[in-house]
Amino acid sequence: MNEFPASQAYRLLEPGPIVLVTTSADGRPNVMTMGFHMMIQHAPPLIGCVIGPWDHSYRTLRKTGECVIAIPTVDLAETVVDIGNCSGDTVDKFERFGLRTRPATDVAAPLLVDCLANIECRVADSGLVDRYNLFILEAKQIWIDDARTERRTMHHRGDGSFIVDGGMLDLRERMVKWRHLPH
Amino acid sequence: MNEFPASQAYRLLEPGPIVLVTTSADGRPNVMTMGFHMMIQHAPPLIGCVIGPWDHSYRTLRKTGECVIAIPTVDLAETVVDIGNCSGDTVDKFERFGLRTRPATDVAAPLLVDCLANIECRVADSGLVDRYNLFILEAKQIWIDDARTERRTMHHRGDGSFIVDGGMLDLRERMVKWRHLPH
Repeated sequence: MNEFPASQAYRLLEPGPIVLVTTSADGRPNVMTMGFHMMIQHAPPLIGCVIGPWDHSYRTLRKTGECVIAIPTVDLAETVVDIGNCSGDTVDKFERFGLRTRPATDVAAPLLVDCLANIECRVADSGLVDRYNLFILEAKQIWIDDARTERRTMHHRGDGSFIVDGGMLDLRERMVKWRHLPH
Repeated sequence: MNEFPASQAYRLLEPGPIVLVTTSADGRPNVMTMGFHMMIQHAPPLIGCVIGPWDHSYRTLRKTGECVIAIPTVDLAETVVDIGNCSGDTVDKFERFGLRTRPATDVAAPLLVDCLANIECRVADSGLVDRYNLFILEAKQIWIDDARTERRTMHHRGDGSFIVDGGMLDLRERMVKWRHLPH
């Protein structure tokens, strides 16, 4: 895995991929699937995400204030859905799904080796959790697997139906107004 | 355009497409391009979106509490970027870009006829605007153009670079835990 500037979290999350979120409390990690997330701010890089009391990871995230947002690609599709359809209450998902992990740098939650990218995050504001289950996270460190060939992410349309990344469209020359963004 | 249940806004927005947002104050409409948005809640359908004081639409949205989120497809790509690279302060974007509109049902902001879908929204909570420029919207009414053939949306990777929708992946049979969601 290669380092990638935390300031460029938007390049990974603004496209709206389905993601996995890892947490860890008292040495016990968990992983969940998440579709409700967004970039909130470029600098510092703030991310909004909805994780509710119905998620096993909720209590851990509130307690530790740390997580990793991992971005899977289409080769992990079935696993991504299955992770979202069982609970860390009763299952060690890393064991069940054979997920390979690596320690993160800034947080106790593990990196997922089989994902395209891993974003180490800390909770920056939990004031919106009681009302909307909305955590404001700050991206602290990003890792990308530059070596992998499969790079197509998935976008959840609800109900286990996904759009897979197709082609790229480069309209950078038309972006005359936003040259100041972090590169 | 055909009606689509507001409760299913997540089918359109959870995949993370780049969107257009229309507003209207005192009979003068405007339109902007937006990439920072998310679903926050299924029922009632709440959407979070970042629109800041740097956007001409910001004052109008605060004042009227109404907007339309329109979802463009790849045939509008250049226009979507150009809309985000000029300001309603100085340009009538509907005229410049030849955008066809239609009156909405619940809000004063216009629908965009050339988009795949239009979501009429009202501001449900503006308490996070001062801190994060984050508006919480409720989807009130949705229109979809069932007749159009081009249905591929775009996902912004920053800097005017986009991923275009590719194929679909149907893993609905694995969604054993979430059968209660609105259909």
